[in-house]
Amino acid sequence: MEIDSTPDLLIHSAGVLPLPKAPRFIGRGWVAIKEGQIQEVAAGDPPSLAARSVINGQGCLVMPGLVNSHIHAPMSLFRGLADDLPLKTWFEDHIFPAEAKWVGEEFVYWGTLLACAEMIRAGTTAFADGYFFEGHVARAARDSGIRALLAQGTLDFPTPDSPSSAAGLRRICDFIETWSGSATIRPALFAHSVYTCSPQLLTRCRDLALKYKVPWVTHLSETREEVEVVSQKYGRTPVNHLENLNLLSSNLIACHCVWLTEAEMDLLAKRGVRVVHNPESNLKLASGVAPIPDLLKRGVPVGLGTDGCASNNNLDLFQEMDFAAKVHKGHRLDPTAMPAETVLEMATLGSARVLGMEAEIGSLEVGKKADVIVVDLNRPHLQPVYNVVSQLVYSAVGADVRDVVIDGRIVMQNRRLLTLDEERILAEARKWRKKIAG
Amino acid sequence: MEIDSTPDLLIHSAGVLPLPKAPRFIGRGWVAIKEGQIQEVAAGDPPSLAARSVINGQGCLVMPGLVNSHIHAPMSLFRGLADDLPLKTWFEDHIFPAEAKWVGEEFVYWGTLLACAEMIRAGTTAFADGYFFEGHVARAARDSGIRALLAQGTLDFPTPDSPSSAAGLRRICDFIETWSGSATIRPALFAHSVYTCSPQLLTRCRDLALKYKVPWVTHLSETREEVEVVSQKYGRTPVNHLENLNLLSSNLIACHCVWLTEAEMDLLAKRGVRVVHNPESNLKLASGVAPIPDLLKRGVPVGLGTDGCASNNNLDLFQEMDFAAKVHKGHRLDPTAMPAETVLEMATLGSARVLGMEAEIGSLEVGKKADVIVVDLNRPHLQPVYNVVSQLVYSAVGADVRDVVIDGRIVMQNRRLLTLDEERILAEARKWRKKIAG
Repeated sequence: MEIDSTPDLLIHSAGVLPLPKAPRFIGRGWVAIKEGQIQEVAAGDPPSLAARSVINGQGCLVMPGLVNSHIHAPMSLFRGLADDLPLKTWFEDHIFPAEAKWVGEEFVYWGTLLACAEMIRAGTTAFADGYFFEGHVARAARDSGIRALLAQGTLDFPTPDSPSSAAGLRRICDFIETWSGSATIRPALFAHSVYTCSPQLLTRCRDLALKYKVPWVTHLSETREEVEVVSQKYGRTPVNHLENLNLLSSNLIACHCVWLTEAEMDLLAKRGVRVVHNPESNLKLASGVAPIPDLLKRGVPVGLGTDGCASNNNLDLFQEMDFAAKVHKGHRLDPTAMPAETVLEMATLGSARVLGMEAEIGSLEVGKKADVIVVDLNRPHLQPVYNVVSQLVYSAVGADVRDVVIDGRIVMQNRRLLTLDEERILAEARKWRKKIAG
Repeated sequence: MEIDSTPDLLIHSAGVLPLPKAPRFIGRGWVAIKEGQIQEVAAGDPPSLAARSVINGQGCLVMPGLVNSHIHAPMSLFRGLADDLPLKTWFEDHIFPAEAKWVGEEFVYWGTLLACAEMIRAGTTAFADGYFFEGHVARAARDSGIRALLAQGTLDFPTPDSPSSAAGLRRICDFIETWSGSATIRPALFAHSVYTCSPQLLTRCRDLALKYKVPWVTHLSETREEVEVVSQKYGRTPVNHLENLNLLSSNLIACHCVWLTEAEMDLLAKRGVRVVHNPESNLKLASGVAPIPDLLKRGVPVGLGTDGCASNNNLDLFQEMDFAAKVHKGHRLDPTAMPAETVLEMATLGSARVLGMEAEIGSLEVGKKADVIVVDLNRPHLQPVYNVVSQLVYSAVGADVRDVVIDGRIVMQNRRLLTLDEERILAEARKWRKKIAG
């Protein structure tokens, strides 16, 4: 019996950037996909155009899908609900009451579908989420076909889905057990922060993460105020507080990490903690500028995230790359502080590392999962092309993505979503707006 | 004889934001355009759909076109040529030699067409430019239908279009005389900076500006190094140097203004100098963060600009608004430092003021020029809509603009450019790339 090597999908006649490195750029090449995996990446023309599906990539660039390593997907339904306010007012008078009042299973499901539609349209093929009713985030993500690491949330006080942290922990176990073994969804857990979770709860989350062999996610040293509050309460900064509890390790995903001392950065590096950089959220909420160049120098794995729509207000990782590349240059008065290549790596392989999926996604290499996007360069703002990485980071936006393949399956073609009913999702978003805004 | 009041163009069934103020938002309304002007803006449905052209704006937002108050249009052909380099290397080893070698009449014409195609596609209906061979910028801008204030450049040493500043000044006079009286193009002059123009040349430029009743444009206090160099050479900072020469006045358009003292800001306000904020360029070239909130507090007219494509690397004012709204919050650790409304005003009425056109453009008011854009809100990243101004500043990108009207003429409809041959322009951009990159 002969083995059929005919690709399921062949993308040809395109520029190909298999890794986030400009020198690896193939001016004209092709990518073959079979059984959800990258079967071949090569220069020139394929030996045959025989394939179940064929995409002509003329004038386009084929590259790894982007990976968003920190969002709160359902909060897309709060996009623009409250902006330009002092942080305390923003959270206490707007976001928290809105969450308490509106967040339920249907809110989470439709909010996540809206977020998935937005992300796929912007070339994001995988994301990491932390929220409540995470099983419904999972349901929506699965329906969209996107890949995801989903973390069920908990904290000390009642949440929209759990009257107590004990109930929250039970929900976490249920969630992880239910979603283990899914092809595209990986479960995890989310302890909101050191200022909303007791040492006991944080330790319990770490223990469950070890038990289930999944990562746990937290917000860490996001604001100066957080560092002050935690230092007053525990006599230690957030990072040192976690170290003292023996909680810093490579299964921790620490989001934001804006306010770190040199010693704390050394510690994060030593413990193998994974970090997510959210530059737009950090600017918009006036949290500050994270010392990402210093973390990268120390070898800390850093991914790129947009954060939720209430603090950005979109999920476009192309725009996030632009911010990440520029803000450190301006902040440090050093135009070499954050090269475009470093940022593109952060949004692909870096985020994949944060999700614990660097062996599977983040680059186009034979045997890796086929999470592939086709960017249309045939546009005035993307010509001429001297350096394709510069173009992606500084000039492109999510709307320049033409086709999206996740796990070998075409989920967007010629900017039409194939897995989701976009009109229905937009109609539901409008319905929620009516309810919430009155 | 009856006067025919039938509109030339009617846009109906749309949300309308006549001024950059959220409370002025009309949930459902219409705009009538006649003889290049706004004839009517009103809520509800128009009394009749009789008009030469009709645009159904269902699910869209009608608003003033954006105004980009500082670019170097032809440099679109250098987009991404040199990035992430120290400023001196960037300019001296890359940009300046490339300009010396390649900038000529055809380069300027095709580069400007590329820039105009990009700007129209991103909802920009007017821009201010400063470059060389400015007559060819004017030719391209006129061909595209866009509105522009175009400033012919000069400096002390030979430029691509003039062997000496004397020849440059003659070119300026010719340019202004040739283009005076155009409907959509206004001529002006551009003295590059205080570190590249002698006091005599600067004074001559100001005198010509007065003679021809046009503004003159310069780069001012863009980098810390500029302030140091000028202070060493003239014993005064750039602003104080201009004040000492009696050159600060309301016909001066000063771009960047990153490094200013409190006293210098007072002086700019007192003299009525107009300022352009270019946050992305300032971050990317590591120039710093301009004290825009402090200038606005003093009543200085501030517009928003993208700067040229070699230092951004696109001309999308929607993205520029996002940067402008976020960077000051992060820099000052104050989430109220730069509200979305202030930024939207900067990109419309503020820039119009800088161009000296605030009576004609920048808002949808009866009798003003009909520079109008239709933004398609029916997209996952733009729903739900709680605050339309937030949505425009934080969530939208140029690609969300569906239709563009300039001077009453539809120049883009359903994202198809009507005045320009986009394929030809892209082909020319690729040709230039081949020549330049070899």
